[in-house]
Amino acid sequence: MIDARKTLRLGAFMRPVSIHAGAWRYPGAWRDANFSFPRLSYLARKLEAGRFDAFFMADHLAVLNMGTEALRRSHTVTSFEPFTLLSALAAITSRIGLVATGSTSFDEPFHVARRFASLDHISEGRAGWNIVTTSNPDAALNFGLEEHLDHAERYRRAREFFDVVTGLWDSFADDAFPRDAASGTYLDPARMHVLAHQGEFFRVRGPLNIARPVQGWPVIVQAGASEPGRQLAAETAEVVFAAPNGLADARALYADVKGRMARIGRDPDHLKILPGAFVVVGASDEEAREKRDLLDSLVHDDNAIDSLSIALGHDARRFDPDAPLPEIPESNASKSGQARAIAIARAENLTVRQLARRFAGYAGLSFVGTPKTIADAMEEWLLSEGCDGFNVMFPYLPEGLDAFVDQIVPELQRRGLFRTEYEGRTLRENLGLPRPANRFF
Amino acid sequence: MIDARKTLRLGAFMRPVSIHAGAWRYPGAWRDANFSFPRLSYLARKLEAGRFDAFFMADHLAVLNMGTEALRRSHTVTSFEPFTLLSALAAITSRIGLVATGSTSFDEPFHVARRFASLDHISEGRAGWNIVTTSNPDAALNFGLEEHLDHAERYRRAREFFDVVTGLWDSFADDAFPRDAASGTYLDPARMHVLAHQGEFFRVRGPLNIARPVQGWPVIVQAGASEPGRQLAAETAEVVFAAPNGLADARALYADVKGRMARIGRDPDHLKILPGAFVVVGASDEEAREKRDLLDSLVHDDNAIDSLSIALGHDARRFDPDAPLPEIPESNASKSGQARAIAIARAENLTVRQLARRFAGYAGLSFVGTPKTIADAMEEWLLSEGCDGFNVMFPYLPEGLDAFVDQIVPELQRRGLFRTEYEGRTLRENLGLPRPANRFF
Repeated sequence: MIDARKTLRLGAFMRPVSIHAGAWRYPGAWRDANFSFPRLSYLARKLEAGRFDAFFMADHLAVLNMGTEALRRSHTVTSFEPFTLLSALAAITSRIGLVATGSTSFDEPFHVARRFASLDHISEGRAGWNIVTTSNPDAALNFGLEEHLDHAERYRRAREFFDVVTGLWDSFADDAFPRDAASGTYLDPARMHVLAHQGEFFRVRGPLNIARPVQGWPVIVQAGASEPGRQLAAETAEVVFAAPNGLADARALYADVKGRMARIGRDPDHLKILPGAFVVVGASDEEAREKRDLLDSLVHDDNAIDSLSIALGHDARRFDPDAPLPEIPESNASKSGQARAIAIARAENLTVRQLARRFAGYAGLSFVGTPKTIADAMEEWLLSEGCDGFNVMFPYLPEGLDAFVDQIVPELQRRGLFRTEYEGRTLRENLGLPRPANRFF
Repeated sequence: MIDARKTLRLGAFMRPVSIHAGAWRYPGAWRDANFSFPRLSYLARKLEAGRFDAFFMADHLAVLNMGTEALRRSHTVTSFEPFTLLSALAAITSRIGLVATGSTSFDEPFHVARRFASLDHISEGRAGWNIVTTSNPDAALNFGLEEHLDHAERYRRAREFFDVVTGLWDSFADDAFPRDAASGTYLDPARMHVLAHQGEFFRVRGPLNIARPVQGWPVIVQAGASEPGRQLAAETAEVVFAAPNGLADARALYADVKGRMARIGRDPDHLKILPGAFVVVGASDEEAREKRDLLDSLVHDDNAIDSLSIALGHDARRFDPDAPLPEIPESNASKSGQARAIAIARAENLTVRQLARRFAGYAGLSFVGTPKTIADAMEEWLLSEGCDGFNVMFPYLPEGLDAFVDQIVPELQRRGLFRTEYEGRTLRENLGLPRPANRFF
């Protein structure tokens, strides 16, 4: 019996197919995967065969790179909407978790609560909610807004949104539906709660018009690494999708967030910290590095500066590309993304152009090497409390994903670091998370 | 070769499983079908085996019957959200159309356009949008609103919402995505249109972040029978879900709407009028009537008055149950529902209680009898230009649906009134509707 605290949790991070801007140009890659439910079905089934915890669907609420040359190069311009995609995948899988990104910035809590509850019922308890606030100014323009809320206001709104959504999920006790044909009692109204929420941002009466989710609540996932993001995670998250710069940074984040949990009386085991990890596997470490180099070379120059602009929240085309990064004023961009870009530039003494190329491919944590090299690194991160597992990013599809499932998963299983069968039927059961009590019953 | 103009189109109207309040109490009925994706999968597959045009998912944005005794009796209190359900059904079917109800009252055009486009891609061209405006006051309270827009304003908003959604669907030409790896051109920006809509109710920049739907636009479905509803249908609808009181009424509606189309230069064949028809089949006409009587007897008294209240937009508990219906002032309720209730009460000289019982079961068009009796009626309606087909309501599940597919469909096929194989792959192809041109390319 493996000690559950010492095994990895693995999510698959599917940002319209791959996060890497060059992925669709890689030899043999499925260029049409963004349009193709059969392709995505293959990938989801393969991940389930590899016993992945979850298929994690990132999202944006606008075409990115608007008005730039990079638009022409970008495969993220078209993407399935997360709920429609994940519900369809629910019907053709049986165990893998299905995590949808849902923004609190331009939607109604009633709609969001209802869609997640429905996905959780349809998948028989496999839904997760990646709560994000949307900082992309292009998105605001699709919803009649010229200006975004500022960072602090976005987080206050996100917190209230979370409270309303979870309150709506608790509209019905688990025994609220006797469905007794003889007496004609379908519902026991005494086991139904009317939320009647009135807050700073929302007024929502309720109840939700769907039974409580199978998992009580879908699994709560967050990504913010800023100060309010960490506190919100410690209070509410069950999975954190982290983006540390290295193991030392990861260990600091791990200790910080789990420490915050302990201070407010939450069991630190009830939150799984999963850094995003870009994984390129080869028969030798050298072959893997060559694959990574080939992939990065497929990023078009147009993409590079624009990706950096998005990370910084400033137009990087105005900077001298061959000079060091200038001082960057505060903006409404994601604070963690901006801070990471600046940190990398300063730490490695990169020019704007060099930094831009890193950002256009993938600038975050990556493991490149043989299955043994990669398993060694993952084991070190796990055992040194740098993480509870990883949200894996595949460099190109299907080969990068197939290679992970066929080569790295067996190596992790051989070491006792990863499951060989799913432990339970729901995402919560597989992640080792408790089912939340209903606050009203 | 059957003349396509003389064959029936059949939709299956699935209002959380059945429209009839007594359906879940019928002997042998699936009481848990509202919670069960496997049950709904069975029903969708059976409808597809019966060559139905579409699975039509009605919707509400609130728990109905709030604060009344009928709440305890109502199986509509819990329901899957349409997009999550229909996407999951898309994955386990291949030909049947998937029509989701989408309200224009409490959602954003960008979200609605995107979900329908995604469902249309995932289903490979089988999506339809039932456009409704929401008049239920309980729904408004779930979205921070105390008062609904008035009837005229709701329709103006619906029309603008439609224009924005269809404009967003046209964001990309069909050839916008060359995905040419050699040159690094994924998208041709010259084949992308930025909508930049500014209207009375919405400001939406666009473009939509998903390729144009497979069908160009999902099939446009409407139900309103009021004066502005008919005009909106003639201008924009491709399927009308009608609720006539009888054949004469149906023929008048048919002639009116198709006449309006001709006057504005639309081909009247490009809109299919499908009255809702509640169908109870038996081995003899008498057995069928007994089934209907048993079903109606299973409606609890609590339901009756409350159903009437919803139809009228007034609390019918205040009326003398054994007196005729009093004069009803105008309200914000659906004008067509209110008018129908008043018309039935006056025409049949019903007391409030009698009228209430009719409304709680199903007060609209119904065909009750043997397969021959029902096919005779459907044939008469079709050939006398009362309709282009029906949106069938099943009295209880699965038996009522199984009986329709196993007994009535073969009788209709024998008469040459219904297809024996799907004509095409998309819902448009099966309905005989043209693919809309892209207004920008």
